[in-house]
Amino acid sequence: MAFQYSQELIFQVSQLIEKNDKQGIINLLKDFHYADIAEILNELNTYEATYIFKILDSEITSEILLEVDEDVREKILQNLSAKEIAEELIELDSDDATDIISELSEKRKQEVINEIDDDEHVKDIVELLRYDEDSAGGLMAKELVKVNENWNVLTCVKEMRAQAEEVTRIHSIYVVDDNDKLKGRLSLKDLLTTSTRTPIKDIYITKVDFVRVGDSAEDVAKIMQKYDLEAIPVVDELGRLVGRITIDDIVDVIKEEAEKDYQLAAGISQDVEADDTIWELTRARLPWLILALFGGFVSVFVLGGFEEALKNHKELFFFTPLIAAMAGNVGVQSSAIIVQGLANDGLRGSMFNRLLKEILLSLFNGFVLAAILMTAGMFLLGFEFKLGLTVAISLVTVIIVASIVGTFIPIILEKKGIDPALATGPFITTSNDIFGILIYFSIAKIILGF
Amino acid sequence: MAFQYSQELIFQVSQLIEKNDKQGIINLLKDFHYADIAEILNELNTYEATYIFKILDSEITSEILLEVDEDVREKILQNLSAKEIAEELIELDSDDATDIISELSEKRKQEVINEIDDDEHVKDIVELLRYDEDSAGGLMAKELVKVNENWNVLTCVKEMRAQAEEVTRIHSIYVVDDNDKLKGRLSLKDLLTTSTRTPIKDIYITKVDFVRVGDSAEDVAKIMQKYDLEAIPVVDELGRLVGRITIDDIVDVIKEEAEKDYQLAAGISQDVEADDTIWELTRARLPWLILALFGGFVSVFVLGGFEEALKNHKELFFFTPLIAAMAGNVGVQSSAIIVQGLANDGLRGSMFNRLLKEILLSLFNGFVLAAILMTAGMFLLGFEFKLGLTVAISLVTVIIVASIVGTFIPIILEKKGIDPALATGPFITTSNDIFGILIYFSIAKIILGF
Repeated sequence: MAFQYSQELIFQVSQLIEKNDKQGIINLLKDFHYADIAEILNELNTYEATYIFKILDSEITSEILLEVDEDVREKILQNLSAKEIAEELIELDSDDATDIISELSEKRKQEVINEIDDDEHVKDIVELLRYDEDSAGGLMAKELVKVNENWNVLTCVKEMRAQAEEVTRIHSIYVVDDNDKLKGRLSLKDLLTTSTRTPIKDIYITKVDFVRVGDSAEDVAKIMQKYDLEAIPVVDELGRLVGRITIDDIVDVIKEEAEKDYQLAAGISQDVEADDTIWELTRARLPWLILALFGGFVSVFVLGGFEEALKNHKELFFFTPLIAAMAGNVGVQSSAIIVQGLANDGLRGSMFNRLLKEILLSLFNGFVLAAILMTAGMFLLGFEFKLGLTVAISLVTVIIVASIVGTFIPIILEKKGIDPALATGPFITTSNDIFGILIYFSIAKIILGF
Repeated sequence: MAFQYSQELIFQVSQLIEKNDKQGIINLLKDFHYADIAEILNELNTYEATYIFKILDSEITSEILLEVDEDVREKILQNLSAKEIAEELIELDSDDATDIISELSEKRKQEVINEIDDDEHVKDIVELLRYDEDSAGGLMAKELVKVNENWNVLTCVKEMRAQAEEVTRIHSIYVVDDNDKLKGRLSLKDLLTTSTRTPIKDIYITKVDFVRVGDSAEDVAKIMQKYDLEAIPVVDELGRLVGRITIDDIVDVIKEEAEKDYQLAAGISQDVEADDTIWELTRARLPWLILALFGGFVSVFVLGGFEEALKNHKELFFFTPLIAAMAGNVGVQSSAIIVQGLANDGLRGSMFNRLLKEILLSLFNGFVLAAILMTAGMFLLGFEFKLGLTVAISLVTVIIVASIVGTFIPIILEKKGIDPALATGPFITTSNDIFGILIYFSIAKIILGF
């Protein structure tokens, strides 16, 4: 059921463009969804993409513009005149139009705004451009259906018919007073099932969830998810209704948030994709590798400091990657669970209980792993007992320390207002490598005396 | 704006329960949203939670039941009779009722079904129980608004008023033929703006996205996201309309999918949370640690095999954690980018291009890191040139190999129908540790001759 373009289709489109067969392209693409055409455009070169853009109707190209990859959009926009861009923006809801216009340079932005000949729309876009893109104001659209509490159902339905022309999807009808202050909401269902002469005052629901323009996108996402909302009204500092946010925008926020956490855990900063340029990928990946390299230097130092152990206990050095790997893995596990707990709905219970639980868990896991290590090591690999014991005791200790570090670093970062997801991945593995090796050789020194 | 319960509130509720002050509790909680009451219930003990459950109205407790943590729900359900559970389920939409009933034992399930005195609802639940919970059938609700293509707008509005009583939120009105086959959809907007005598045939939209009952939840999520749908109709094998899926259920699918990938990348299987028991957490974490431990054994062997290097080049052993860490980090980065690309919309371009890009990227990153290593190593740490060169060449080689491994393992897993996210995390770090160390010492042997 999901559309998947074929190489033949792409080839066919390219051929038609080469032949300058406009009608052929229009006929070929007319039954495709705009999201599918966007996927085709992603595969074409800039000349071809712009060509298609100029021959299709702006009602559909405006939607395509929203769906194509950011780099493709940038190139298409460069090839369109300010007037052509303005024509696209007129077709879009204010929030989508604002997203696109905000990608332009200041100069182009002004040119495009001057070309939009719909005063209401321009006013909305200029207002929305003021808000931070990660705030409720940056997510909301100005298009909504609102009615005055002093109307009756009949006036309300009439007004709604007029307003509905502007609004793609009606979620709720918001009720305001004469000063535009949000008073409540009206369900379509109630409107459908009530007599036309009923005053709105009698049927509207006064309990209405709302957010303020300055609330963060993340908070809006949490509220809409928790209360299962498909749309939420946005009010300004005076409680006046200024916009509404719909769930499809929130789905994007949730996905981006999850992807960011995932990438941070894998040691990738910024929002990159497999299809980005080598330069973009390098900028996202190299800094973490440099961090890991410096961590590696420190471990070289630490190992160098225990050089004397080489004389009688050279096997100790064979176990360093094992100890480092266990420390890293445990640290990442612990931090990932905390990061996810913080992202969802905060953590329940006290710090002390959390610490106790993590230590108990690590003790249990550590003992199981140490038992496997001792058994396999002595019977299969033929370690001496004292060496096996050293590695086993170190393993348990390292696991406990690594899990405590993994638990607390994200909690501390969160308290300091830093994204706790930064703590997972290379940061935790690198620091736990170093701690692990240091603990291991220190314990070995105590037991074996070198 | 987001509700956050206080310890005082929890204490107050406990006190009221102890005093058996039913009216006090009802008054205290009456202005709270059910999602907020669910959070309070999560904090209470089973006796208290069940107590509150029994005194509040089932219209609200049924919603609370959906929102509380799974372990709390399990305990509450154990304390309710089959008849009491049935009363909760009658209040819920068929999909939510099915989700709850499917958590019961076979025997209880039957008892509860026998107690539901709403034939239509029971029929719906029994039908929904048949579907796999990760399929479109498992996500859909039976409640929807449908009209016959042969009606006119007036009949349609009348019928809808009746049907709307059963449906929480109207997204689309689906149009079917006399055999219940899905023919198209009708927008509420069109219905509001068309004369009442217009036949439905003339105004309905024939292009309608739909999914089949057997489609996977993940595919449904992709389609709904791509086409920005808030609800999608579900049809059976004969094209008959059997249910609809709404975006709020898809938000959950998207979140769970993202959390699962994140946990796998961190070496945690199954869906666990910070507040789960030590036993649940151990089952999710220990297997990965055992995998890493066996990987560690292999690295012990590999290092033991190069024991001869200890004689003249003991410093080589100080660098093993550095090499292993770099190999692990690069591998995780490469695999994470591929896993995310696969999860989003597949990867563009050929395998050959991808390979070439990854090698170029690794060469570039590798050279930068090797340059830092050589510079810092020789000037700050005073390595010999030959040792520095050995480590630097190994580093570049290891990075290239690790990135190739990280790129291809997820692609191969995906082709074999295995979740590629399994490849990230411990699996990649462990195998890259081993490869890295092997490559490093082999290169050292060639350059230094030991």
